[in-house]
Amino acid sequence: MRTIWFAADGEDVVEVIDQTRLPHEMAVVAWSTVEDAARGIETMQVRGAPLIGVSAAHGVFLAMASDPSDAALTGAIGRLRRTRPTAVNLGWALDQVEAELRPLAPAQRAGAARALAARLADEDVAACRAIGEAGLAALVDAAGPDGTVNVLTHCNAGWLATVDWGTALAPIYRAHDDGLPVRVAVSETRPRNQGALTAWELAGHGVPHRLVADNAAGHLLAAGEIDVVITGADRIAANGDVANKIGTYLKALAARASGVPFLVAAPCSTIDRACPDGSAIPIEERPPDEVRLVVGSTRQGGIDAVRVVGGDTPVANPAFDVTPAALVTALITERGVVPATTEGIASLFPR
Amino acid sequence: MRTIWFAADGEDVVEVIDQTRLPHEMAVVAWSTVEDAARGIETMQVRGAPLIGVSAAHGVFLAMASDPSDAALTGAIGRLRRTRPTAVNLGWALDQVEAELRPLAPAQRAGAARALAARLADEDVAACRAIGEAGLAALVDAAGPDGTVNVLTHCNAGWLATVDWGTALAPIYRAHDDGLPVRVAVSETRPRNQGALTAWELAGHGVPHRLVADNAAGHLLAAGEIDVVITGADRIAANGDVANKIGTYLKALAARASGVPFLVAAPCSTIDRACPDGSAIPIEERPPDEVRLVVGSTRQGGIDAVRVVGGDTPVANPAFDVTPAALVTALITERGVVPATTEGIASLFPR
Repeated sequence: MRTIWFAADGEDVVEVIDQTRLPHEMAVVAWSTVEDAARGIETMQVRGAPLIGVSAAHGVFLAMASDPSDAALTGAIGRLRRTRPTAVNLGWALDQVEAELRPLAPAQRAGAARALAARLADEDVAACRAIGEAGLAALVDAAGPDGTVNVLTHCNAGWLATVDWGTALAPIYRAHDDGLPVRVAVSETRPRNQGALTAWELAGHGVPHRLVADNAAGHLLAAGEIDVVITGADRIAANGDVANKIGTYLKALAARASGVPFLVAAPCSTIDRACPDGSAIPIEERPPDEVRLVVGSTRQGGIDAVRVVGGDTPVANPAFDVTPAALVTALITERGVVPATTEGIASLFPR
Repeated sequence: MRTIWFAADGEDVVEVIDQTRLPHEMAVVAWSTVEDAARGIETMQVRGAPLIGVSAAHGVFLAMASDPSDAALTGAIGRLRRTRPTAVNLGWALDQVEAELRPLAPAQRAGAARALAARLADEDVAACRAIGEAGLAALVDAAGPDGTVNVLTHCNAGWLATVDWGTALAPIYRAHDDGLPVRVAVSETRPRNQGALTAWELAGHGVPHRLVADNAAGHLLAAGEIDVVITGADRIAANGDVANKIGTYLKALAARASGVPFLVAAPCSTIDRACPDGSAIPIEERPPDEVRLVVGSTRQGGIDAVRVVGGDTPVANPAFDVTPAALVTALITERGVVPATTEGIASLFPR
């Protein structure tokens, strides 16, 4: 199953898995307009840097299907670009959309936008499969004396964060499918609890795992229970600094303190060569109610959210942090594994 | 208001604030038996190392009030000692109870137990007030260029964690009362959300604060938004290693990486001189449902808990971690501020 697809031919509709309902309910939501797509990205019906980029391309298709004018193209790209600031894949996809569609006659744009969105989706699947291949050796190298690899991951960088396969989870799925014993500690990832998505994915794939509070990462690493940490990324600067889900940096610090490798898996579309270092990456501040509220059950008779603290409690809610390149052992991309350095990153983009 | 007290004279009843209902509801629960007290400690009606110790002494009083025999004394102390393993204040209080009550004739034990519990409560209040005094200078020293002190704390080490005043929050209350501008970032502290207790305390005292996800600590420190980190402790080893609520170690690592002082405030009853270092401190593993469930609202029509992930999701739930002494800038005790070293700790216990 993919995370995003076109509805039946003849309908100008995009369907996505509504990730705000998981793991409680597998629900599909239909997008008919670019505004549906933009709100879907903002409210995290779709999330994960690679999927955000592919979703934006699908959103432009929806805009072009109803109005292929220059103004509509400009409006759609602008609306989608403002949805979320940190994941560079969004701008990467919209830059391609702009370059391909702008020169076309309006009558050609809907068809071209649909073809481009489909191509970006297929390319994402291929890139993620290649990340799984490239990362396999790094996982095998980290195996403990009993041959089992104990992995710690954060947030969800699985197939739900991409079109299929995932980034950080791709090598884990590949290792598991190859019969390598792999066991995953899944960090809850407050405030949005994307660890529950990862636990749901891993359970569906039969991969042994344990859910842990975000606070537990340091203890597990210090206790020798983790052989390797692997996460995804939302933007990688030209010097190898990595912006990823808030809390990633704490895990990188703890991995370094315990001498455990800290790997970052991402497609090259997540690398922002125009961004010199992490200090130039915009960090999204998300709504305070994400911290005040907890997304709850959607079972029959259940409720969607529970207020944990008062509605007037002041909150800071940065959604990402920056892990300095010096804490990153290696970057795993579809083009190979490289050091998180200016030279390593440059080697991924030969002239 | 205190967190624990004897009900009206003539009744052998202890009353405590039920902290599992806060911050949604201020409810008082009555303990009539030692089993009530033991379960209250286990289920975290009362929590925080200093309050656990004082509560155990009150529990022995309840046992002696109904049966002051040698066997009942042994049983009560044994039952209470098994409630929670990490906070050394529990054993510290029960050792005093044993030493004072065992030599007495049974008829004298209830009265002596009551007097001892009351004395331990009063001593805790005095110790916490002294910690506030001792820690004030360390806070003032950390103030930024505009004179405001931006503090990060974790879990709840306020008056709710003690009989009154608190440990980590005592210097903050003292500073605020003295007119020093102090602003507190409160770490949520999953899985039990004790940060909500801290936010509730600070709001009640008028101290400016912001609630943040546990994951946000590294970003806030790296962004220069925090001048000093201060936490409580559940057990301090003779070499200065500090066991405290899970996640404390991650904050200490991040504070060190950003060059920010990391202070630990605790009464001397939290120092375990028989424990050579952190590796000898038992780490409590708590029930998996604490991670699977989120304690929710108790409003009329609300519910007490919401299942966030499936009931069969495997979980690891260590409740504490150990921060190496090398990451601790200083220990703040009722006897003064000392380095987190063997020599610093020995200086608190002159022969």
